[in-house]
Amino acid sequence: MDKIKVVAFDADDTLWVNEPFFRAAEDKFCAMLEDFLPYHTVSRELLTTEIANIKRYGYGIKSFMLSMIETAIRVTNKTIKAAEIERIIAIGDEMLNQPLEIIDGVEEVLKALQGKYRLVVATKGDLLDQEKKLKRSGLADYFHHTEIVSEKDEAEYRRIIKHLDVEPHEFVMIGNSLKSDILPVLNIGGYGIHIPFHITWELEKVHQSIEHQNFKSVEKVQQVLAFL
Amino acid sequence: MDKIKVVAFDADDTLWVNEPFFRAAEDKFCAMLEDFLPYHTVSRELLTTEIANIKRYGYGIKSFMLSMIETAIRVTNKTIKAAEIERIIAIGDEMLNQPLEIIDGVEEVLKALQGKYRLVVATKGDLLDQEKKLKRSGLADYFHHTEIVSEKDEAEYRRIIKHLDVEPHEFVMIGNSLKSDILPVLNIGGYGIHIPFHITWELEKVHQSIEHQNFKSVEKVQQVLAFL
Repeated sequence: MDKIKVVAFDADDTLWVNEPFFRAAEDKFCAMLEDFLPYHTVSRELLTTEIANIKRYGYGIKSFMLSMIETAIRVTNKTIKAAEIERIIAIGDEMLNQPLEIIDGVEEVLKALQGKYRLVVATKGDLLDQEKKLKRSGLADYFHHTEIVSEKDEAEYRRIIKHLDVEPHEFVMIGNSLKSDILPVLNIGGYGIHIPFHITWELEKVHQSIEHQNFKSVEKVQQVLAFL
Repeated sequence: MDKIKVVAFDADDTLWVNEPFFRAAEDKFCAMLEDFLPYHTVSRELLTTEIANIKRYGYGIKSFMLSMIETAIRVTNKTIKAAEIERIIAIGDEMLNQPLEIIDGVEEVLKALQGKYRLVVATKGDLLDQEKKLKRSGLADYFHHTEIVSEKDEAEYRRIIKHLDVEPHEFVMIGNSLKSDILPVLNIGGYGIHIPFHITWELEKVHQSIEHQNFKSVEKVQQVLAFL
């Protein structure tokens, strides 16, 4: 990684905690509907709705709220009450107001890399949510800018790298998702450092082990400094 | 405008038709709730909800859908049925699937400016919606890139201009909203060309006449070529 100029960080579950809040919200949602259907059935139905809705609604909390409402109407066979839908909206609003938890070691790493590389945030998700989180995180000043994309695929990484005016081998992506942060970057000639997070969303799971000269995996964010 | 290097276009109601689809959706929504409250009262209640929700949900169709659901629950005093909420979601989905109508003259103008200036799209709204619309519009190739922001204010325009690596007097913004496209740009030393659209959303209305040396107003997009 001697040629690296740009270090890109994923945001959710790489810079700050995210997925556990979605799981906590899902937990409240499934518990709320237990009078209608078993917890695990509701959970599975919600995932089915989310998958169907990604193309329509994209990622993020608003999309998740609409998927919860749609699922509730479907699994209750349209018998759910307005007050319960209001409760679902409240579950989403709680997520939006959740205090931000920076992942341990992140600031220390950003301090160490600052000035040596151009640091950017590359994230999918809802634009407004992610901007708010970056502001609230107090980490914004470490980053040159944020790239918010609707899908982290090879085409989007090519666009980001072109936009950054660097070559793929001058770009490293650090993130918790093999599917979104690592594989597409390796495929176009960049570097990827994977930092697994203890919870991974079903849709981000990859059942594959990666052997690639541009790939590293570490347990804690501080360990990326061994390569940079 | 001799020094202009970057020409930025607003998207909704500047490149393509948008607001009429929101008004048509609102019309269906208000008609649906006429059993509970008069049409105009529902319309006013919806606007109140939208204003309250902008900071929480931002702009775009998903945000509008959540505001419609919230309004329906409130104005019916929680008596609205799940089937009607499903209908509200369907109204939103119709909006997402609406065919794109490019505004007359836009492509001709982009062709004429192409190569002479760096052309960008600067829009607020939902990231996924706007990206999809740009792809479907067939206009994407005219633009160097898209800047999607959560709020078009002076700070965001400063950031965009810095990001474009130009000076404010080298930047002109073309759009239909005095509030979002013109005033903040003039305030930071850029140029603004206003092209009014026949419908303006309540929240974008400005009751002010602008006298400024960097300001132009035209009736049709083709007329911007007189200045560029």
